[in-house]
Amino acid sequence: MIIGDNLTDLDIFFKPKSVAVIGASRNPERVGHIILKRMIEIEYPGKLYPVNPKAEKILGIKCYSSVEEIPDEIYLAVIALRADLTPSALEESAKKGAKGAIVISGGFSEIGNYGLEAQLLSIAKKYGIRIIGPNCLGVFDPKNKIDTLFLPKEVIPRPRAGEVSIITQSGSLGSTLLTMIRKEGRGLSKFISYGNRIDVDEGDLVSYLSEDNDTKVIAAYIEGVIDGRKFMDTIRSASAKKPVVVLKGGRTASGDRAVKSHTGSLAGRSDIFEAAVKQSRGIIVGTLDEFMDVPAALSTQPPMYGDKVAVLTNGGGFGILAVDALEMRGFKVTPPSSELMRKLKEILPLYYPVSNPTDLTGDSTPEQFLDAGLAIVESCEYDALFLIPLLGVPGMVPEKTESMLIQLVKSSNIPIVATAVPTTPNVEEVLHKMEKKGLPIYPTPERAASSLYGLRQYGKMRDTSPIEHF
Amino acid sequence: MIIGDNLTDLDIFFKPKSVAVIGASRNPERVGHIILKRMIEIEYPGKLYPVNPKAEKILGIKCYSSVEEIPDEIYLAVIALRADLTPSALEESAKKGAKGAIVISGGFSEIGNYGLEAQLLSIAKKYGIRIIGPNCLGVFDPKNKIDTLFLPKEVIPRPRAGEVSIITQSGSLGSTLLTMIRKEGRGLSKFISYGNRIDVDEGDLVSYLSEDNDTKVIAAYIEGVIDGRKFMDTIRSASAKKPVVVLKGGRTASGDRAVKSHTGSLAGRSDIFEAAVKQSRGIIVGTLDEFMDVPAALSTQPPMYGDKVAVLTNGGGFGILAVDALEMRGFKVTPPSSELMRKLKEILPLYYPVSNPTDLTGDSTPEQFLDAGLAIVESCEYDALFLIPLLGVPGMVPEKTESMLIQLVKSSNIPIVATAVPTTPNVEEVLHKMEKKGLPIYPTPERAASSLYGLRQYGKMRDTSPIEHF
Repeated sequence: MIIGDNLTDLDIFFKPKSVAVIGASRNPERVGHIILKRMIEIEYPGKLYPVNPKAEKILGIKCYSSVEEIPDEIYLAVIALRADLTPSALEESAKKGAKGAIVISGGFSEIGNYGLEAQLLSIAKKYGIRIIGPNCLGVFDPKNKIDTLFLPKEVIPRPRAGEVSIITQSGSLGSTLLTMIRKEGRGLSKFISYGNRIDVDEGDLVSYLSEDNDTKVIAAYIEGVIDGRKFMDTIRSASAKKPVVVLKGGRTASGDRAVKSHTGSLAGRSDIFEAAVKQSRGIIVGTLDEFMDVPAALSTQPPMYGDKVAVLTNGGGFGILAVDALEMRGFKVTPPSSELMRKLKEILPLYYPVSNPTDLTGDSTPEQFLDAGLAIVESCEYDALFLIPLLGVPGMVPEKTESMLIQLVKSSNIPIVATAVPTTPNVEEVLHKMEKKGLPIYPTPERAASSLYGLRQYGKMRDTSPIEHF
Repeated sequence: MIIGDNLTDLDIFFKPKSVAVIGASRNPERVGHIILKRMIEIEYPGKLYPVNPKAEKILGIKCYSSVEEIPDEIYLAVIALRADLTPSALEESAKKGAKGAIVISGGFSEIGNYGLEAQLLSIAKKYGIRIIGPNCLGVFDPKNKIDTLFLPKEVIPRPRAGEVSIITQSGSLGSTLLTMIRKEGRGLSKFISYGNRIDVDEGDLVSYLSEDNDTKVIAAYIEGVIDGRKFMDTIRSASAKKPVVVLKGGRTASGDRAVKSHTGSLAGRSDIFEAAVKQSRGIIVGTLDEFMDVPAALSTQPPMYGDKVAVLTNGGGFGILAVDALEMRGFKVTPPSSELMRKLKEILPLYYPVSNPTDLTGDSTPEQFLDAGLAIVESCEYDALFLIPLLGVPGMVPEKTESMLIQLVKSSNIPIVATAVPTTPNVEEVLHKMEKKGLPIYPTPERAASSLYGLRQYGKMRDTSPIEHF
């Protein structure tokens, strides 16, 4: 979708009517080439203007020797030039009407070049143009078809469109997150690597994403914030609308030292940062897996409003590890009432162990998962359902499992998460389909339990009065 | 390798001169068919005797109507019959000279059928035949080419041969472990699912594997042990020879309840069990990932004899998360001495941040990883090296990275672990090659740090006097 002239605020970075790629190159290894190529590949629907004084055409598109020379107004400038050439490119873009610029180029404050960064900022203020960067990957938005990441898709394949948006202070971490999301069959709404954030910062982005209808969950990798109060206020107001998941890099003393050397951020005391995020109702996660896993649950499942979990498995050992992982995270894996027990025994073969976990054994079928799952959900005895449908047994026909479990998810008013192992490419594909249709699936019981913990945290925050202040 | 008549103890299960598959079936969905097929597919080098009164040939192999009818001596019997038919099959096998039997069949104590199990055991005692099972998957040994797992390879593809042996009390968990190992490009020496363990138990297996030259690390998934003292003694003596990694299912109150319903094991107090394992110098792990990851490090890397870790990365954010994960596990990520600092600055471009972590940036090359890595190793300032070679940047040519990093591993006397993300199938293949050549690789910093923790635990145990008793 292109909004064009009615752009508000940061929309310009995701829905620009035209994009100038300044520093576009014929050399396939150059950043300016890769960005232009990605914009073509992703089928960016607006007008593309490559700018390079030495080329007539790049990738089949007419090239302009300068921004000035472009015959039309431009909306967004993507600048991939040597650092010292960026201020004039920015100014020319602003004069040409650009409302936003993504400065990909590095060579600024991260190597001590503060003066150049100040120059960019003063141009931005003068013309009212917003800047993402410098020293960043920029944005990837599969729905609006924008991709300024200078990573060929052959090197970093992109994930599908989805409902989680990620902002990341680290580009390299960000680029591998794309791989991780894709490998789990998950999707992404917007991805923003914002680099040195001389203008648009984490607070602006969280605020923008909180209003974005395509974003159901915001996930932020933060090493340090420039304006702590603004960031916490933003998290607080965003969290009233949708979950905000935060992974803080530099939580330990040595990690904090590493942050200072990496982005020059003054991280401040990490325990205070994390406490402030929690008080602002953000959800703190502690590992890279959780940073991917928790949003996947939050984007498809309702919040969890109590501590009781029912485990439904067809693998005894997996069931036990799930129970351990759940109880270690404070959940209660209590046996069903005699009423529910009776109902489950009615539904299932006599020799199936019915309790919590209920073990559907190697003889399990997708129908049994559906029927037993529905009985558990309808009993209203549990606050979440934890499924372990292992597809390695003959009865668990993958396609049938998919339709039955999705039916179960759709019929449920409590959150459902699953652990399943992609044993073969076919099974993996089916698991990805289920993930896409709304059942979050994790390869280990511990990761599924951590994600449920995220749903519980969000449930607790929603239970608290929204006007509470500190 | 087939040892034949000189078999000692449990060798019979891995190197039998001949195998009778009792209950072999023409129906491709039956257990007895799949097992015979797997033995053929894996190219079992000895003689195979399918037994089925109703078939002349199965899968092209002459079939016998009874065990008695087999013209030669048999060494190992694999029994896949209805439970009530197993005692006579076992007795006939023993009479025919079999020294071992794997009883795949279920329907014994796990469903309350204790009498039938007692019958099997009394036959075993009478004839001196060893039994694995009943109610198990049996063994998979890619080097000796034995596979009695009734899981078609199309459903559960098998991992390559390697140096970690796994014993598991849960068959379903075991079968998915195979997938996980394979997905990480890792290998397996011996895999044993021992089911109801009426004869061969976890103690026997750990003891056998501790003497097995093809096994460098023993990994045991345990829900409960029959003879605690025997098991701990076995772990103690095995640990003097090689690492023994233990994952205990049922560590929480609800988990323990689930164990009782799953295998009927009396788990006993789990904290006491874990303390006893640690006192016996076993290495306790807490998650399924660790159960796979820690042995991968222990099988290729030396023990870790101190707490200091150097981090060498080409991704700033990843470096920070690694430092956090390390410090949270008690490691010290201290900056290098001025001497080592000077040396690293000499080797690397001026603008690279040299400290701990040292960041080779997006301009990194495999040579820089090798040179900087060697400088760190040779400085003797650190007890381990933590590499993060992200292959998504142009300089990190995968094949070159492989050869340089393996050279680094071979030149190092301290443990090296790595975090790297399989961004593309090609990169994944290269990572698997590195893993095979001796560099343990993990998809997240946290998992790599946990594995280093395992190496540190083993180092601490080796530091302690070997005659210490409790």
